[in-house]
Amino acid sequence: MSEFELIKKIKKLFGKIPPSVKISIGDDAAAVEEDKLKLYTTDMFIENIHFKREYMNPSQIAKKALICSVSDICAMGGVPKYVLLNLALPKEEISFFDEFLEGIKEFLKDHNLYLLGGDLSSSLKDIFICVTVIGEVEKNKVIGRRGAKIGDKIFVTGYLGNSSAGLELLKRGIKINSNLINSHIHPPLRIREAQFIKDYEFATSMIDISDGLILDLYFLLCEDNLGAKIYKDKLPISSDLRSLSSFLSKDIYEYVLYGGEDYELLFTVKKEKYEEFKDIIEKKRKMVAFEIGEIIEEEGIFLVEKSKISKILVKGFNHFSD
Amino acid sequence: MSEFELIKKIKKLFGKIPPSVKISIGDDAAAVEEDKLKLYTTDMFIENIHFKREYMNPSQIAKKALICSVSDICAMGGVPKYVLLNLALPKEEISFFDEFLEGIKEFLKDHNLYLLGGDLSSSLKDIFICVTVIGEVEKNKVIGRRGAKIGDKIFVTGYLGNSSAGLELLKRGIKINSNLINSHIHPPLRIREAQFIKDYEFATSMIDISDGLILDLYFLLCEDNLGAKIYKDKLPISSDLRSLSSFLSKDIYEYVLYGGEDYELLFTVKKEKYEEFKDIIEKKRKMVAFEIGEIIEEEGIFLVEKSKISKILVKGFNHFSD
Repeated sequence: MSEFELIKKIKKLFGKIPPSVKISIGDDAAAVEEDKLKLYTTDMFIENIHFKREYMNPSQIAKKALICSVSDICAMGGVPKYVLLNLALPKEEISFFDEFLEGIKEFLKDHNLYLLGGDLSSSLKDIFICVTVIGEVEKNKVIGRRGAKIGDKIFVTGYLGNSSAGLELLKRGIKINSNLINSHIHPPLRIREAQFIKDYEFATSMIDISDGLILDLYFLLCEDNLGAKIYKDKLPISSDLRSLSSFLSKDIYEYVLYGGEDYELLFTVKKEKYEEFKDIIEKKRKMVAFEIGEIIEEEGIFLVEKSKISKILVKGFNHFSD
Repeated sequence: MSEFELIKKIKKLFGKIPPSVKISIGDDAAAVEEDKLKLYTTDMFIENIHFKREYMNPSQIAKKALICSVSDICAMGGVPKYVLLNLALPKEEISFFDEFLEGIKEFLKDHNLYLLGGDLSSSLKDIFICVTVIGEVEKNKVIGRRGAKIGDKIFVTGYLGNSSAGLELLKRGIKINSNLINSHIHPPLRIREAQFIKDYEFATSMIDISDGLILDLYFLLCEDNLGAKIYKDKLPISSDLRSLSSFLSKDIYEYVLYGGEDYELLFTVKKEKYEEFKDIIEKKRKMVAFEIGEIIEEEGIFLVEKSKISKILVKGFNHFSD
């Protein structure tokens, strides 16, 4: 099988493109006619660093690689539009290719995305994936990491800690039919919720939780020298995580506070919009979100448990720690 | 050293951005205000597949990774604007990082490019680089791979085979102070020439030579079911390649026809513009280009040597051949 034949296969699978795309797969670069504010994000997904093939099939690997990058576009309030895909795999693993592409195709179809191009390469041992996503958002509605103000309330769109607890079950070979494992393999993608938050201009800052609640919250605070109070009993914890706690090696709050890859949105709601937003999630139930704390002046992240307040250590996944 | 500190360093080095960039390094995605036709390209640059650290220092690796992708934007007639950079390297190789970033910074400054974001990761063994470049071009001036017509003349912007011959010298440890080795380590980037070709609308199709003259020429022909005649004595061969031929294991035409990574532009000039273009390169000398052949109706690539015509085997670098 030659690279050229592989690209032919890709062209056949992903050849349907919208009229704004003038040139796509198979040229030196893709050419797109656009307006609005463009959003660009790129992420790596490397075997034995970000995923293991013993836990996921090629289609699941494809979808998770896409979720990680598409989620970043959502966290800006953007609509994901186009994908560039890089795949390096050992020559002898060419069988991986077909099922992987099927996963990509299914995901793109489900989310109205188009593949514009990419690069194929051999690798010596591990599979290497790199996904670049191009999205867009109305010019004055983009939601960055900076922008939170003292008094803003902090919300998340769903359960925390499920993904990291699911990964531990996988690592330890505990194959209980569990939503936790599924949360790790196929995390949620909050496209609709992000659009809702953006359209009504509820948020002053937003991020997707990939490195853990506390570390990602720290990213929202650090550049503006702000702090946050988090209420322990308000943290959304799934019944799955609670019921399986006896199978896990750590206290469940270790997963909830520090576990990565939940891909829920973490955002701050401005004071003037707080009542309206509460009404929307509690009475009108237009989207799911949990209030977990508020932005404060004092730097640092503090956990409130009944009448006790303690400063939380900021930590999370770090690729370059010893 | 934490990932966060590495990103801080990157922000400090690449913090200067133009006003059209609303959000850049360190957020979930970058946000850019744009017009014109957008061009997107992405390429991998993997240790022991695309480069070896024994042949190049980190700064040279950085620059070559950028050249490969930026060259693709040029080959569309585009102006490169923004870069997204992914780097995965083993934890213990963190020293690679600083010199690599310096190379990136120097290159971006020299070519008026801006870093918008990217992703950092550890890797188990090899260094993995992935560069995405965003460029733009006027709406009706984009030059794709398709578009060549029968009778169009074929041109290249510079010497062929230097890079692959240089790689062979490196592999065999022949450290003659040679331009060939430099052609492999730091190939030319034809930004100015590409803009010239695009501005005056000389080309019907264009590609950059990364896989070898014959294979890249085949890419210009195959989808339109066209053929080409190449004149052997018109192929531009450097005096360096000729003079070092005794050190090389193959006939020099093997490098000229099939050697990859020269990154010269290969393009077809329309009949109506041929005389004007000849005048520009031969008399006005506004850019360097060599006429090497023409587009014909009969499929296949034919080499003309004096009165002999022979069909050339289409081959070049293939990541997935056995």
